[in-house]
Amino acid sequence: MTDTPRRPSINTLAMPLVDKFAADAALLRVSVTSGPGGARIIDAGSRVPGSIEAGRRLAEICLAGLATVALAPAGPLAHWPFSLVVHAADPVLACLASQYAGWSLSAGKGKEAYFALGSGPGRAAARVEPLFEELHYHDAPQSAVLVLETGAPPPRAIVDKVAQATGLPADRLTFIYAPTQSLAGSTQVVARVLEVGLHKVHTLGFPLERVVDGIGSAPLAPPAPDFVKAMGRTNDAIIYGGRIQLFVSGPDGEARDLAEALPSSTSRDHGAPFADIFGRFKGDFYAIDPHLFSPAEVIVTALDSGRSYRAGRLAPDLVDASFA
Amino acid sequence: MTDTPRRPSINTLAMPLVDKFAADAALLRVSVTSGPGGARIIDAGSRVPGSIEAGRRLAEICLAGLATVALAPAGPLAHWPFSLVVHAADPVLACLASQYAGWSLSAGKGKEAYFALGSGPGRAAARVEPLFEELHYHDAPQSAVLVLETGAPPPRAIVDKVAQATGLPADRLTFIYAPTQSLAGSTQVVARVLEVGLHKVHTLGFPLERVVDGIGSAPLAPPAPDFVKAMGRTNDAIIYGGRIQLFVSGPDGEARDLAEALPSSTSRDHGAPFADIFGRFKGDFYAIDPHLFSPAEVIVTALDSGRSYRAGRLAPDLVDASFA
Amino acid sequence: MTDTPRRPSINTLAMPLVDKFAADAALLRVSVTSGPGGARIIDAGSRVPGSIEAGRRLAEICLAGLATVALAPAGPLAHWPFSLVVHAADPVLACLASQYAGWSLSAGKGKEAYFALGSGPGRAAARVEPLFEELHYHDAPQSAVLVLETGAPPPRAIVDKVAQATGLPADRLTFIYAPTQSLAGSTQVVARVLEVGLHKVHTLGFPLERVVDGIGSAPLAPPAPDFVKAMGRTNDAIIYGGRIQLFVSGPDGEARDLAEALPSSTSRDHGAPFADIFGRFKGDFYAIDPHLFSPAEVIVTALDSGRSYRAGRLAPDLVDASFA
Repeated sequence: MTDTPRRPSINTLAMPLVDKFAADAALLRVSVTSGPGGARIIDAGSRVPGSIEAGRRLAEICLAGLATVALAPAGPLAHWPFSLVVHAADPVLACLASQYAGWSLSAGKGKEAYFALGSGPGRAAARVEPLFEELHYHDAPQSAVLVLETGAPPPRAIVDKVAQATGLPADRLTFIYAPTQSLAGSTQVVARVLEVGLHKVHTLGFPLERVVDGIGSAPLAPPAPDFVKAMGRTNDAIIYGGRIQLFVSGPDGEARDLAEALPSSTSRDHGAPFADIFGRFKGDFYAIDPHLFSPAEVIVTALDSGRSYRAGRLAPDLVDASFA
Repeated sequence: MTDTPRRPSINTLAMPLVDKFAADAALLRVSVTSGPGGARIIDAGSRVPGSIEAGRRLAEICLAGLATVALAPAGPLAHWPFSLVVHAADPVLACLASQYAGWSLSAGKGKEAYFALGSGPGRAAARVEPLFEELHYHDAPQSAVLVLETGAPPPRAIVDKVAQATGLPADRLTFIYAPTQSLAGSTQVVARVLEVGLHKVHTLGFPLERVVDGIGSAPLAPPAPDFVKAMGRTNDAIIYGGRIQLFVSGPDGEARDLAEALPSSTSRDHGAPFADIFGRFKGDFYAIDPHLFSPAEVIVTALDSGRSYRAGRLAPDLVDASFA
Repeated sequence: MTDTPRRPSINTLAMPLVDKFAADAALLRVSVTSGPGGARIIDAGSRVPGSIEAGRRLAEICLAGLATVALAPAGPLAHWPFSLVVHAADPVLACLASQYAGWSLSAGKGKEAYFALGSGPGRAAARVEPLFEELHYHDAPQSAVLVLETGAPPPRAIVDKVAQATGLPADRLTFIYAPTQSLAGSTQVVARVLEVGLHKVHTLGFPLERVVDGIGSAPLAPPAPDFVKAMGRTNDAIIYGGRIQLFVSGPDGEARDLAEALPSSTSRDHGAPFADIFGRFKGDFYAIDPHLFSPAEVIVTALDSGRSYRAGRLAPDLVDASFA
């Protein structure tokens, strides 16, 4: 493995999917408008019904067209059969450089305050997150797309911030937003099962360049109108119903250690629906053990030896308790 | 959800799929000919072998390109693992305005008599069915496609009838036909699992505009040379082997009532392979309890509360008895 | 079934997939170079990391664009959930005329010796294998693609041999190669589950023209750095973890006999991981019972009667022993 192929421009890869998403707005039941500075603003689940299909495509946009997100009729959970399978050709690039909701975007104060987590390829054009120093990736595209997990369109201050950070005029930016409570929002978050696993891989200090490939699956979470419950369900779909297989290079011992440290069951907070945990910590997100955020079951295949290590277990009862 | 996105033209959406179907005729082992008035006639399983893939694509055409129909390696039935999963972005439009086989097309008498049930987007351009008054949808396309579940091509009288009803010249019409006994015919009927569920939703008087999204799956039914047996198997794949999840708005009580009334097990005729029931009623289709026509297992998720209600159960033994 | 649709040119069908594969080289982490005589040479897993996605697409290229190869989140094996499902529109053409690795390509001697098994559409343009006399198929394309299961690019002597056999200049040829030990190599071999079944159908003397349709699935095999182990795993994924359903014409008795003779369990060598069997025969491939090469479980549906016959059984313990 001595040749390093040139890495693709992830915004350029995503853009045909974004244009198709906009062109299919009627079909997907999303709406496209022109926002501040001519930015293209797509509502995928706030004032429009949206759809699971909109969420599935939104996930593929978040993954920069590097991954396939498909719906399967049966997964490992008897009561919640319909599942997503996520497969990324270049999982670190697709999930961490693109899909990870790592860009905190806020503007205004008081009643005018706006906050959203930004995900998608646009992050790699902005590179305001320290994570990018480790990813050794920079995108300099002609246009960029950002996905916002929120129910409100980005105000001018946010559009300007993104334009400045990416070096692109506002009219070359697309923002797609959907609240977690919507069909599209819930679906696109569940499709983060592989990304959540990779983020914990990173947190554990395992070198990202040694993650060669990955696949993940999780049950579709039914959306809930309450934000905490909706967020809880999408987390539980991953924490108690998700599983991933990673293919890594390096020594067996490190692959085994990674497998053992990776699943959500290693967390002291494992064992209750996420909304309950969130309540127990009085809504203080940062008080929750970050090790909880990971798939329930993991297989780590060490490519240098061919051995596979598995850890964790699905918790169908907790998925039932969450989704009920 | 105050914005109502403009609804797409379903014949226009389907047409690229139809053109691809015709272009791939050799691959799909179907045949394309020019019929009365220059109508494009595609035989997908009568005098040609056709294929499961032709049936899968035929199903996507019936669903107007609004839905994905995919083959999965494993569903809930141990003996019949290969399954279809159907996911529509706008299920009422895709399934009821398009896929439902609601247009009775007959012509001629005696030996010359022709009868077929018409399904697909062309129905929405003709709007001869009372159902369209409730769907609040009208398509005025430049060309239209109709799918016929039969072994014989449409004669001139049928082509003329469709041309007149749609207001399109015959040479802007495509007819695709395949008998239930063929691979393509059997496959495209099993892919109606979600549509069959939605049709019962409508029969039960639940407001269609409150069905926001839906997914379904059913096992591929092996075709049988006898029409009654072939039809029986496609019905049994849905009635005893199908499951759906619907996402609806409105009060919890109504979602729960819908779930309880929806599965096939609510029917007095549930409990035997469809061909046997058909024989018991001496082939009088209209004597069979219409409540039988529904998936075996349903989950109804109430979007306004986030609660899910489930009812019905798969009947693997009856699928085995039917498919054996 | 009296009309025989014209059969497609399989190299022509595959070429858009090949061009897309080359265009997406950065995404798939494969490399494209110009080789002897201007032949396009794509390394999908030797000096590049490649990916499961590259292998999935490589499989679709091998199948000449006649088949879909998709990743599913769950198959029948609890420990190895991620599976491939293969569905060919024209399985004999897709699998035997194209995907089968039937062309032994060798050149040079001693240290310079090169050997690889060639698969893919290019075989049908060369027709050097006796099998083609039975397939009644000849492709005369403008360009051709060949897939090589090896870690080394084809030398000039091989390119010249293929150019001569296909009657095409070297610069109209594409060679894609990946060793069995790579992610792409392992994935594309597991995707042969249906082809392996069809090859045994042929070996058993069942008339190929009576195989009308087919579907298969097998678990993704984790690659191993040792060639014998890697080859063993891909074989075991099929022999102990694969299943297929074939749809055939002709008498019931022959369909039943085919089902009973087809699964790997009919082989005297069934019962141990393939690498162990290979060792037992001291690496003499031709000493191994050829009846072993077949999926674990088969369903044969007789289209003329509608009856299905099943035989064989999955052996999850042997898959575990092989993949561990």
